[in-house]
Amino acid sequence: MDLLQPVREFLTCPTPQSWLNAASQQPATLLIDHANCEKKAAGTALSLLYRYVDRSELLHRLSRLAREELRHFEQVLAEMQRRNIPYTHLSPSRYAGELRALVANHEPQRLVDTLVVGAVVEARSCERFALIVDADLHGLGAFYERLLASEARHFEDYLGLARRYAQSDIDDKVAAVLAVDAELVNRPDSEFRFHSGPPS
Amino acid sequence: MDLLQPVREFLTCPTPQSWLNAASQQPATLLIDHANCEKKAAGTALSLLYRYVDRSELLHRLSRLAREELRHFEQVLAEMQRRNIPYTHLSPSRYAGELRALVANHEPQRLVDTLVVGAVVEARSCERFALIVDADLHGLGAFYERLLASEARHFEDYLGLARRYAQSDIDDKVAAVLAVDAELVNRPDSEFRFHSGPPS
Repeated sequence: MDLLQPVREFLTCPTPQSWLNAASQQPATLLIDHANCEKKAAGTALSLLYRYVDRSELLHRLSRLAREELRHFEQVLAEMQRRNIPYTHLSPSRYAGELRALVANHEPQRLVDTLVVGAVVEARSCERFALIVDADLHGLGAFYERLLASEARHFEDYLGLARRYAQSDIDDKVAAVLAVDAELVNRPDSEFRFHSGPPS
Repeated sequence: MDLLQPVREFLTCPTPQSWLNAASQQPATLLIDHANCEKKAAGTALSLLYRYVDRSELLHRLSRLAREELRHFEQVLAEMQRRNIPYTHLSPSRYAGELRALVANHEPQRLVDTLVVGAVVEARSCERFALIVDADLHGLGAFYERLLASEARHFEDYLGLARRYAQSDIDDKVAAVLAVDAELVNRPDSEFRFHSGPPS
């Protein structure tokens, strides 16, 4: 898949096979947590629309991105209903919270860091979508293939906005966030989630 | 306009002419506050998607509604840019906050009340859109006419969900929220906003 090449070049490590094995045993948790991630992604984008009203490119791009995340949310919901999976409450994984701890609490760094974290989360999501597609996990291959292209676009959107609004090079920040992503992707995790590490 | 008939029958009073006069003098504030209201409406819908995961009709309808509010947000932004109106920070009006004070803090009443307040806010917004259309205020008539139909649909969505999830008749609650809406629409207001009262 050509769409994936920039994503795979960006990330510093692949998802371990043991995550995919865990995913193959927990279709309901996979889909419920994915639905939660889409809502959360829409909520993160929306919070940036509140905070940065003077950045018109950000407003346009992230409003569209939030709409796409919500459309995916609806598509995951429909897939859950088709499979009679009830939508139960599920605690979030450690992943997004630990990445967000890397965001500075002063501007303009806060904005740039948030955008870099957004890019990394979208890239990792996209990489996992591709694993599900390749394995046709739970017969979800075609479904995830349809979501993959916009997820790859969201990664580019976030990275482009981070570069646009940064006052200097963002390479160090990108490397720091990617290092934590790689650590989280490989550190054993007590709970299986869309962004969890290998099962402990 | 046929679309408006249910909205006008639902509301207990029209917006006073003095609000329209104030709107005719403040196109920038009108559009900026409208953009803020669209974001806020999307945020309110999104917060319900987090809280009520076991209500599948709510999830589907309000996710679509949030997407439409975000699309309107983008359309208002584009209109602001066409008119060279900078997007500055603007405090919210008293309107939504005072209506939300009517929401119970226990379930299931909290859900039903929130949906009733949503219906009233959408109905009032729709009624004001129609005033702008009829007056072709600032040449915005055609623009607001395009938004009006989905705003009328959102009113029906909220009201339908409130009836669906209520354990008894919602007429008393609707009457209570409409009474506060009417009071706010007629009580002099120190600041002009999309949902403000007559200028004090």
